[in-house]
Amino acid sequence: MACLKGKDILHGNQFTRKEIEAILKVASEFEKELKKKDTLPLLKGKILATLFFEPSTRTRLSFETAMQRLGGGVIGMGSVESSSVAKGETLLDTVRTVAQYADVIVLRHPRLGSAKEAADAVPIPIINAGDGAGQHPTQALLDMYTIQKEIGSLKNLTVSLVGDLKYGRTVHALVELLSLFKAKIYMVSPALLRMPTEITTGLKENGIEVIETEDMVEAANASSILYMTRIQKERFADLSEYERLKGSFVLNRAFLNKLKRKVTILHPLPRVDEIDPEVDTYPGAAYFRQMRNGIFVRMALLAMIFGKR
Amino acid sequence: MACLKGKDILHGNQFTRKEIEAILKVASEFEKELKKKDTLPLLKGKILATLFFEPSTRTRLSFETAMQRLGGGVIGMGSVESSSVAKGETLLDTVRTVAQYADVIVLRHPRLGSAKEAADAVPIPIINAGDGAGQHPTQALLDMYTIQKEIGSLKNLTVSLVGDLKYGRTVHALVELLSLFKAKIYMVSPALLRMPTEITTGLKENGIEVIETEDMVEAANASSILYMTRIQKERFADLSEYERLKGSFVLNRAFLNKLKRKVTILHPLPRVDEIDPEVDTYPGAAYFRQMRNGIFVRMALLAMIFGKR
Amino acid sequence: MACLKGKDILHGNQFTRKEIEAILKVASEFEKELKKKDTLPLLKGKILATLFFEPSTRTRLSFETAMQRLGGGVIGMGSVESSSVAKGETLLDTVRTVAQYADVIVLRHPRLGSAKEAADAVPIPIINAGDGAGQHPTQALLDMYTIQKEIGSLKNLTVSLVGDLKYGRTVHALVELLSLFKAKIYMVSPALLRMPTEITTGLKENGIEVIETEDMVEAANASSILYMTRIQKERFADLSEYERLKGSFVLNRAFLNKLKRKVTILHPLPRVDEIDPEVDTYPGAAYFRQMRNGIFVRMALLAMIFGKR
Repeated sequence: MACLKGKDILHGNQFTRKEIEAILKVASEFEKELKKKDTLPLLKGKILATLFFEPSTRTRLSFETAMQRLGGGVIGMGSVESSSVAKGETLLDTVRTVAQYADVIVLRHPRLGSAKEAADAVPIPIINAGDGAGQHPTQALLDMYTIQKEIGSLKNLTVSLVGDLKYGRTVHALVELLSLFKAKIYMVSPALLRMPTEITTGLKENGIEVIETEDMVEAANASSILYMTRIQKERFADLSEYERLKGSFVLNRAFLNKLKRKVTILHPLPRVDEIDPEVDTYPGAAYFRQMRNGIFVRMALLAMIFGKR
Repeated sequence: MACLKGKDILHGNQFTRKEIEAILKVASEFEKELKKKDTLPLLKGKILATLFFEPSTRTRLSFETAMQRLGGGVIGMGSVESSSVAKGETLLDTVRTVAQYADVIVLRHPRLGSAKEAADAVPIPIINAGDGAGQHPTQALLDMYTIQKEIGSLKNLTVSLVGDLKYGRTVHALVELLSLFKAKIYMVSPALLRMPTEITTGLKENGIEVIETEDMVEAANASSILYMTRIQKERFADLSEYERLKGSFVLNRAFLNKLKRKVTILHPLPRVDEIDPEVDTYPGAAYFRQMRNGIFVRMALLAMIFGKR
Repeated sequence: MACLKGKDILHGNQFTRKEIEAILKVASEFEKELKKKDTLPLLKGKILATLFFEPSTRTRLSFETAMQRLGGGVIGMGSVESSSVAKGETLLDTVRTVAQYADVIVLRHPRLGSAKEAADAVPIPIINAGDGAGQHPTQALLDMYTIQKEIGSLKNLTVSLVGDLKYGRTVHALVELLSLFKAKIYMVSPALLRMPTEITTGLKENGIEVIETEDMVEAANASSILYMTRIQKERFADLSEYERLKGSFVLNRAFLNKLKRKVTILHPLPRVDEIDPEVDTYPGAAYFRQMRNGIFVRMALLAMIFGKR
């Protein structure tokens, strides 16, 4: 069985297929047990610290919920403005300090590679909850869990990734995991926001079939999963460029009516315009179920990091 | 006995007199039990989420305390700036997401009707902690509990409501509850900030005696309860109008000395100038006791929502 | 044995030598017990409130951790902007309200004397976590604990305090405690930031040997402890004065190589430039261990305040 005890969770590429299967299996067990009771007190007495240097609702609250449902406690930095970061403290000093208090740290920071730096600086496990345009591996794991639940299997998948594939860290982590399961991947984005070449090249070298296109209908018709992402305003230096692009890859009922069959729609959320709320009642719209799955997957990761599974 | 299991708490008018009496009875039992021990672990394993889109200290901390004294856990959105709301997420998407994590949501949002919209969107209970100039029903319940404790009964009350009756959501919810107990109500406000006509009309149709006046002495002399409210700067488009009005309805020792007998003074707090701190030692000044009562009433509501009373 | 039950923690000068020894003894016992298990549930059901009107990471998180490791719960005001302070509430009203909810309050506020005012206003214990340029007694206690652990004893100490001794509240509290143990104290600061005369005079009247100097090498060579502090930008009205001074009292490897023997380096953190990160691997660099010690000392204080030790 996969052993994550004491390990950092930094990057989608750190997992073997067996490890992913083990994590999803534990998540599935937790989901079943939580139907019978509200908590599984495996981490009683442990403390998780959240350090979010960028806005977040779901990732932070999801970890706080997961930790509390495991019986553990939570401390959080709160806003950057109300913390010692406002006094000019470096990231590593903040992390080193918090590592004196907590048993595990969940970190989101705008700088690529920051989670790795933090992990190298402290003895306790670091969970990367987003490092700039880098990675967001726990999101990718909950995405895989959702695909498995919605589709029934992770074998022979065809997945369309749609939107901002250049800066979207969740898709960067997700393709790492999909490639372990030999999924066929459509990458649907405007030319300016294509998946970085080093990632597509790496996938192809691993024998993954990658199709880059701007045609969302073609991709959706070939796929069982449509993974939508937000075109993030904060990634653009030129806001007019953002305004021009954001409407290009939008999912609505009219689009879904054009498709040959039902697709499963995922989105890491928050969404802005890229999925019309009229889609929410479409049977394949799985993005709120996906949020719930985040609890089970993060519980599994936390339990395994502490050697409790 | 009243059954609130699984119900939303949205509006003062949702309660019957019997339900209010039942809630206050549970609150009273909890108050007694908390004198013997610090917690009543009825909600162990449950998680309450706070979503406050407007500033709050007491309502949020009061709910967090109530939930923890019941053995439950708490997650909170934190400031709007540090959440996904900053990325343009709609209220309903935020609420739908948090409903995947928590077992109950306490919501404060500036838009009238927002709590009802949220309640319609999710399967878990929503507690309205203020929706613009709309309602704040848990405040009204703790006000009733305080009146009962201070006066000894909810029968044959005469209550003066003072200050901003137009935008003050706590008084909007309170009059709903007072009317169930056939209280006589003085409404003391500047002309610009009078109670909305639809509310006074509704009260009168229900046989409630309503006296609108600008004379605070007359009202206070006829009342056993003086319910003060803050004239809220953030409700005024024109700040000079605010400056002109805010001093008009102020309570101080000189005013109290003019009265024929002791009154019980309530205030939802925070106050700014409308109660002089010299009043704090007046025996009828009940506004800090009122804060404490909020814990017992919110514990009662939470326990009842989860079917534990 | 020292009895802190129900007491406020406001000022370094409130403790006797016996009390400090008792606190450090309990802290040491807790440190040992926490090696065997994650929590010591002495304060189950108690609630600690944090009210921070100035930025903080470590003090707030340290108290939150300490309370949770003792099995207690935590509520926190969050940022000033998201609280009722934004509506113009006074400090004392906020404190009086929160005292209705929590069992103990940890307060940081920019006004000198604010913690004492708060303590006088409410029946529950107040812990001063910084009142402007005043005091920060729990920091001083954890500093003493760290010195005892690093040096092996609190007897016959020679300590150099370096940096901003005028506005630095941690050193104001620390000298009170050092004087009880008859330490010899070097005060190394620019002329503008010298220790206030009333403090040095008081120390000398108590028979403490105080040497004021701008020569950090001389002081360090005579001391076993080098207590560095940040020259805080936010204390300066004139920023050019800050820029001129901040580089003057900096610790780096070159400086340490000039010394005759190893020194123990403490710092309340956050640091900005005053300790070069290259110093972090120096064996005497104890400032991150110092952070960890804060947990044990604050656990000891909390347990003792509630009469559990």
